[in-house]
Amino acid sequence: MSFTPAVSEQRFVLDHVVGLGELGVDGDLTDAVLEGAGAFAAGEWAPLDRAGDIVGAKWTADGVVMPQGYAQAYKAYVEGGWGTIGSPEAYGGQGLPVSLATAVLETLGSANTGFALCPTLTVGAIEALVHHGTPEQQAAYLPHLSSGAWTGTMNLTEPQAGSDVGALKAMAKPLGDGSWSITGTKIFISFGDHDLADNIVHLVLARTPDAPAGTRGISLFLVPKYRLNADGTPGAFNDVRTVSIEHKMGLHASPTCVLSFGDNNDCIGELIGAEHGGMRAMFTMMNNARLNVGLQGVQIAERATQRAVAYARERVQSARAGSPSRESVAIIEHPDVRRMLLRMKAQTFAARALVYLAFGQLDRANAGDAQARARLELLTPLAKAHGTDLGNEVASLGVQVHGGMGYIEETGAAQHFRDARITPIYEGTNGIQAADLVGRKLTGDGGAALFALTGEIRGQTQDANLIALTDACDEVARHLISAETDDRLAASYPFLTMLSVAVCGWLMEKQGRIAASAEGDPAFLAMKQAAAAFYTAQIVPEALGLKAAATASAEVLYRVTVDGFAS
Amino acid sequence: MSFTPAVSEQRFVLDHVVGLGELGVDGDLTDAVLEGAGAFAAGEWAPLDRAGDIVGAKWTADGVVMPQGYAQAYKAYVEGGWGTIGSPEAYGGQGLPVSLATAVLETLGSANTGFALCPTLTVGAIEALVHHGTPEQQAAYLPHLSSGAWTGTMNLTEPQAGSDVGALKAMAKPLGDGSWSITGTKIFISFGDHDLADNIVHLVLARTPDAPAGTRGISLFLVPKYRLNADGTPGAFNDVRTVSIEHKMGLHASPTCVLSFGDNNDCIGELIGAEHGGMRAMFTMMNNARLNVGLQGVQIAERATQRAVAYARERVQSARAGSPSRESVAIIEHPDVRRMLLRMKAQTFAARALVYLAFGQLDRANAGDAQARARLELLTPLAKAHGTDLGNEVASLGVQVHGGMGYIEETGAAQHFRDARITPIYEGTNGIQAADLVGRKLTGDGGAALFALTGEIRGQTQDANLIALTDACDEVARHLISAETDDRLAASYPFLTMLSVAVCGWLMEKQGRIAASAEGDPAFLAMKQAAAAFYTAQIVPEALGLKAAATASAEVLYRVTVDGFAS
Repeated sequence: MSFTPAVSEQRFVLDHVVGLGELGVDGDLTDAVLEGAGAFAAGEWAPLDRAGDIVGAKWTADGVVMPQGYAQAYKAYVEGGWGTIGSPEAYGGQGLPVSLATAVLETLGSANTGFALCPTLTVGAIEALVHHGTPEQQAAYLPHLSSGAWTGTMNLTEPQAGSDVGALKAMAKPLGDGSWSITGTKIFISFGDHDLADNIVHLVLARTPDAPAGTRGISLFLVPKYRLNADGTPGAFNDVRTVSIEHKMGLHASPTCVLSFGDNNDCIGELIGAEHGGMRAMFTMMNNARLNVGLQGVQIAERATQRAVAYARERVQSARAGSPSRESVAIIEHPDVRRMLLRMKAQTFAARALVYLAFGQLDRANAGDAQARARLELLTPLAKAHGTDLGNEVASLGVQVHGGMGYIEETGAAQHFRDARITPIYEGTNGIQAADLVGRKLTGDGGAALFALTGEIRGQTQDANLIALTDACDEVARHLISAETDDRLAASYPFLTMLSVAVCGWLMEKQGRIAASAEGDPAFLAMKQAAAAFYTAQIVPEALGLKAAATASAEVLYRVTVDGFAS
Repeated sequence: MSFTPAVSEQRFVLDHVVGLGELGVDGDLTDAVLEGAGAFAAGEWAPLDRAGDIVGAKWTADGVVMPQGYAQAYKAYVEGGWGTIGSPEAYGGQGLPVSLATAVLETLGSANTGFALCPTLTVGAIEALVHHGTPEQQAAYLPHLSSGAWTGTMNLTEPQAGSDVGALKAMAKPLGDGSWSITGTKIFISFGDHDLADNIVHLVLARTPDAPAGTRGISLFLVPKYRLNADGTPGAFNDVRTVSIEHKMGLHASPTCVLSFGDNNDCIGELIGAEHGGMRAMFTMMNNARLNVGLQGVQIAERATQRAVAYARERVQSARAGSPSRESVAIIEHPDVRRMLLRMKAQTFAARALVYLAFGQLDRANAGDAQARARLELLTPLAKAHGTDLGNEVASLGVQVHGGMGYIEETGAAQHFRDARITPIYEGTNGIQAADLVGRKLTGDGGAALFALTGEIRGQTQDANLIALTDACDEVARHLISAETDDRLAASYPFLTMLSVAVCGWLMEKQGRIAASAEGDPAFLAMKQAAAAFYTAQIVPEALGLKAAATASAEVLYRVTVDGFAS
């Protein structure tokens, strides 16, 4: 099935949710970027999606090899400048808002989710260097990362250190000349190796000698696959070996590597930021990465919806119940199929609005807006967790709309379902996001950012369902702020969903109202209104049903012993 | 991970939900069957599960070949008599309640979901022959099907005839001697071919010459892979060719075949039941199959939960938040992980209770109880759709509990997630189940069976949440009975979920009360109570959140044109 970039919808959300105009980008430029990226992604990346799944990235003794066509398509991406949009002009970037770069990345990821993870990780490395690198490091690496000529990775996880990053054991020893010798093994490193670029810039968390235990003793290192020559070009191999890649349920175009650093004691890294300041530096790239994982939810939801709509329009099956005509109709005409499709549309719109809203706050925060930063921090766990939950829900509905054909791999619906399933897990599981929400983000400021948000929602809507949900969020939030730790955490996930739906409901209703009087494609504007109506009338009330769980005590969870769970 | 049969739980549900004692089976026999089946399944079938997924069934020019070990394990199943439990004594069966056979099939399917689909389909063929076969047909086929020495299939689907069975084109022409020449192609035929048994008995829907259009013109035929010799043994090949098998997302141990009947005009079938009476005969096996697909939800939920609990007890990660100790703990100690695990336990219990309840009604209906039949008919779409929805939810939570490891195929959690995804689709999509519920099952008797059920729930509980949900179900039901067709269908799925949760809540609360004063393993009884409390306090209120959707009009779905969905 061909991929159609969601240009009208992206433009609408950039205008009315992000406020891209306020960020200094005019509509013509926006359209040019969206349409250009769309044409590129549909033409060059989408056709490779299936081979990415079937053939996948392959481990060889000489490194990871991508499926045929990927190297060329990646080169075209670099040459087209698609990676440079949001990067600083000082380093060859275009210095445009991250929100606009987000739309481009969404389109690339809808075309080919696994492939787009490569530039996604590069963005994280750029962020870390922009905020924590020395001028020399920035000059040496940023131009190549901005263009995408070199790619970036994030190296946190070790076998014993997953969500518990503080348990990591990789070591960095000073070599006396300001550089460090890196040793250790990292797992789950997306695009840890590949044959797309001239160099790979690994950002690696490690411990320095005598560092304190836990996260306070972690430092961040820049470890290139190839050391730089005096002229800045990639030179000698830096003793970073790809031991294996994982056999995953999906996202096969993205090699998930086990990397071994310094097997021959010849792996050299540079410190990024302060010694023992690794977690802070890592959070810079991780927060960005979390939004981008939420964006993967949008990417997959968009593509899965397009595929399901196309199938439902083609597949003819049964006459419509209650209709005088006994002619068989396309299944999109049957109420329950149409309900699934409208739900897919509405949830895709909702996920996009939520994630883009967060990126809009990131742009403002980057410009020094403290309120926007507070809101960004509150929205980050929502965008990551709810964005990915919606990606999974929509991909599953996509399979269902296809009926038996949805279970057959050739159809393509199953790939989205498999690809999506990692997104609620990596970059901090959604449970970690929920803990972040009710911990740092809610109790950290006594609920100030949250109540500012819910207050704004209430001030902008007259929808009874949405007001009821917003009130319920406030009530739950007040309860959680003073709750015991266990109770707060036990209730965290249902609360995250409630609050996310309130935010999405706000954005959906607002867009529906704008669409009612906007000029443009009538079919698109009608869909925006219908999706908004469906969302507030049906999805918002569902979230109200979570209030009991969001205020329940943890006691029931611990009433049974650990052994009892296996009984 | 080893598989532990859920014997205590099965026995509890058979006693307190099914009332197996009332059906004339004593506890010692029940225990012997459950434990024997458990030991067999864990010892012989579970170890083959992974090879079933990785290697899978293979198509060859000589027929479908199962992975190594399957033929032997199937032979052991036949020789152990595990297929005979619920079959009539007259044909070599043990004549025990279907409910007890269900528990055996659950255990086999938890051990190896794909493999267990083979006996599941055979059960359907037995049902069709018991109710619609001639004495000669019964004598010739039932003993072999009861033992499992021969297996059965259901042949409904054709490329243009999926949910719309009436669109099928397979033909049956009379040969003058009472037999029929069968031609046509069927797709999605589970275990349509394999190397496990001496014969395969295909039950095939086809049209006779001059048959009326649609479902009224369909007849059911028995078409063996090998015709029977005069002595009843399998003889000449009957021109049923396996053209290919599907490349599916999961359930790889189950070959999904494209079967071509009569390519050489040499495929002979026998009519089962009356000419043009095919849909009625097919419903006999299909209703049974629907319950058994609901049971697959239970199978997968049970296994996924066991796997997640085992992992969560072993995996040590981070200290418990708010605890004075900074020692890292097993992740089962963390509130949100424990919430997921308790939810998995509760939803698995709920699915089992719902599906077993329906089978208990089937046993009573088979004994002539008309009220039980009415309730069975009402429960069938709930057991199929909600049972499979829960299987999917639990399998997804199982992946999530594993974190990154859940996405790696070697862990096994991903397989359950992939295997489960077909269950809401086949044997009538869950959307078809919802249409059946609000159509035939609700409006067919003006809501009599439904109001009898909700009345019984209300009479047996004092739980406020459950009463509220039951009241809401009644209110929605009254609304739907008089609603327009489109509105009824648009609301059907949310209503099915609400009603299913009400039934599960009823059964969960009842079991929780019984467990509070029952004798037995204290850890198990404590879990039953905690799961019941969690279910009524947290899951029941979620279902109340669906009321808005269950009473919404279809208008919003059709406010946008078909083109608008692609805009």
